[in-house]
Amino acid sequence: MIQTPYLLFLGDAPDPLAAKVAQGIRDWRPEFALGQYRMEGCNADMKLPDLSLAEAHAKGAKTLVIGVANRGGVISQKWKDVLHTALEQGFDLAAGLHNLLRDEADLVETARRHGRTLHDVRVPSVQYPIANGVKRSGKRLLAVGTDCSCGKMYTTLAMDAEMRQRGLKSSFRATGQTGILISGDGVPLDAVIADFMAGSIEYLTPDNDADHWDLIEGQGSLFHPSYSGVTLALVHGGQPDALVICHEPTRSHMRGLPGYKLPSIEAVRDMALELARVTNPACQAVGISVNTQHLSEAEAEKYLKDTEARLGLPATDPFRHGAGRLVDTLAAI
Amino acid sequence: MIQTPYLLFLGDAPDPLAAKVAQGIRDWRPEFALGQYRMEGCNADMKLPDLSLAEAHAKGAKTLVIGVANRGGVISQKWKDVLHTALEQGFDLAAGLHNLLRDEADLVETARRHGRTLHDVRVPSVQYPIANGVKRSGKRLLAVGTDCSCGKMYTTLAMDAEMRQRGLKSSFRATGQTGILISGDGVPLDAVIADFMAGSIEYLTPDNDADHWDLIEGQGSLFHPSYSGVTLALVHGGQPDALVICHEPTRSHMRGLPGYKLPSIEAVRDMALELARVTNPACQAVGISVNTQHLSEAEAEKYLKDTEARLGLPATDPFRHGAGRLVDTLAAI
Repeated sequence: MIQTPYLLFLGDAPDPLAAKVAQGIRDWRPEFALGQYRMEGCNADMKLPDLSLAEAHAKGAKTLVIGVANRGGVISQKWKDVLHTALEQGFDLAAGLHNLLRDEADLVETARRHGRTLHDVRVPSVQYPIANGVKRSGKRLLAVGTDCSCGKMYTTLAMDAEMRQRGLKSSFRATGQTGILISGDGVPLDAVIADFMAGSIEYLTPDNDADHWDLIEGQGSLFHPSYSGVTLALVHGGQPDALVICHEPTRSHMRGLPGYKLPSIEAVRDMALELARVTNPACQAVGISVNTQHLSEAEAEKYLKDTEARLGLPATDPFRHGAGRLVDTLAAI
Repeated sequence: MIQTPYLLFLGDAPDPLAAKVAQGIRDWRPEFALGQYRMEGCNADMKLPDLSLAEAHAKGAKTLVIGVANRGGVISQKWKDVLHTALEQGFDLAAGLHNLLRDEADLVETARRHGRTLHDVRVPSVQYPIANGVKRSGKRLLAVGTDCSCGKMYTTLAMDAEMRQRGLKSSFRATGQTGILISGDGVPLDAVIADFMAGSIEYLTPDNDADHWDLIEGQGSLFHPSYSGVTLALVHGGQPDALVICHEPTRSHMRGLPGYKLPSIEAVRDMALELARVTNPACQAVGISVNTQHLSEAEAEKYLKDTEARLGLPATDPFRHGAGRLVDTLAAI
């Protein structure tokens, strides 16, 4: 688990998009985001206080989170002075980049000397068990998608925010790098060894209060030939009581696979439900989360209305309209 | 790829069952099995020539395969003298044990000094690609099971042997440790990183002659909560043209999971076909392979007859009756 609160390192971000991890933390866990650290030439701004390392440390910041990805997702040599100084001043470091903090010998040495921790959220830090399929207490929701990258993380984060606001018990359960950096904990599922995938999700969503909801970030799609096995491990390891189906209606083919058409929302609902009922016979589909960012307001409204009528389930875009209607559905379960 | 032929190391096997890897090689790849090496107290016998290391080397043996598992699946200190001498005399070593040859510093040093290779078939030796879902030439069959350990490896090995005998083109494609040691090559799928599972199976079963069959060893079950993701990676990465459903009719529950009943053969057929058709719309179920070892001859005959009538597909036990009827089905595909 990554120590909070954070100082968000934006480095020399060439544009705001490069700082989307920092943006995610600022949006979803503002209480973790004490301030930002920007270097010369930084073109991103989270509208947080610009703090020096010493100032942030004095305010209680525990971890410097690399909230920026440069081209290639590597650790820039230009950042190194700041990273070393941060370790010397008592910060841990956290990153989700392709090349790992732990593979930078100089950072490892400085961290060792000062007793600090390097968090590479791309690689598991836990020896996960093999799944045992035993029923856990508490409730669980899983976001499943017609495709990769269609809004599963956003949907579960938005539901979590809505539930917190209503005073309901919920935990966003991250299964990817960005989600882990946002929430400070989780399972980097795509990097887990095959035999332990489902077990890692059982570990992530343990026994809980009867009225507590784990909102599990989905990955991949049961219909995506590259990653479907990862998705099925989530379906069986998560033992979800509720599924939200996530869809982006303007995709012409599965992400990265020009030869593969998207499945229908109905096909995903039916397949996911049938598989989910192997570990939780009571599992239900409760709603459809549509990513309408490429539709006009009028198109989005029509698409959502049609989808809702066709599926007989609430269909909403949590970005445009909030996650309220999705959260409403959980009251009955 | 492991260099053949082999000298089979039986060590101090406490009983014949402990040498089941050696048995598998002797049964399925007799041309690889030049001889056996037994230590004092060995209670297993493959009925192969007992050869010294020097004799085996003179006959052309390239690899000493550890064909025995002692309690705990570890590398016994008692074996060490033989293993060092083998490396010194020019043998590679291959093992599928829990603790790895490469983690024994003394063996690593001897192998390095003599330029030999240590094959730990439990861990991948290849950086597999991410699956691209592109159709490959040639034909593929996948064994899928109602459960783990119900005869999938046996079924595909028996079909491979039958096809070779008939002069047909086939390759047994191993996806587990024992299968890899038997055939000298394969993917240790349960140890592959999640993101690369399906890609590893595409890698294992590349383009081939139009009339060539890859017979892919299955793993797990789509209905086994611990390993279902591994199974789905096989279904999507393998792009099978044909499925054989494997079943052991006397199981009272899923292996290792007392709370989980076995699915019906029909449920596995329907689910596997629907998922397989995502990457290969022409996929068909061609037969049922029943492991009848716990049934009497009369019970087995009745069970197979009933199953065949119910499913409308050839149902056979390849151990009792050979794989001929399963191979016959492939002619039409």
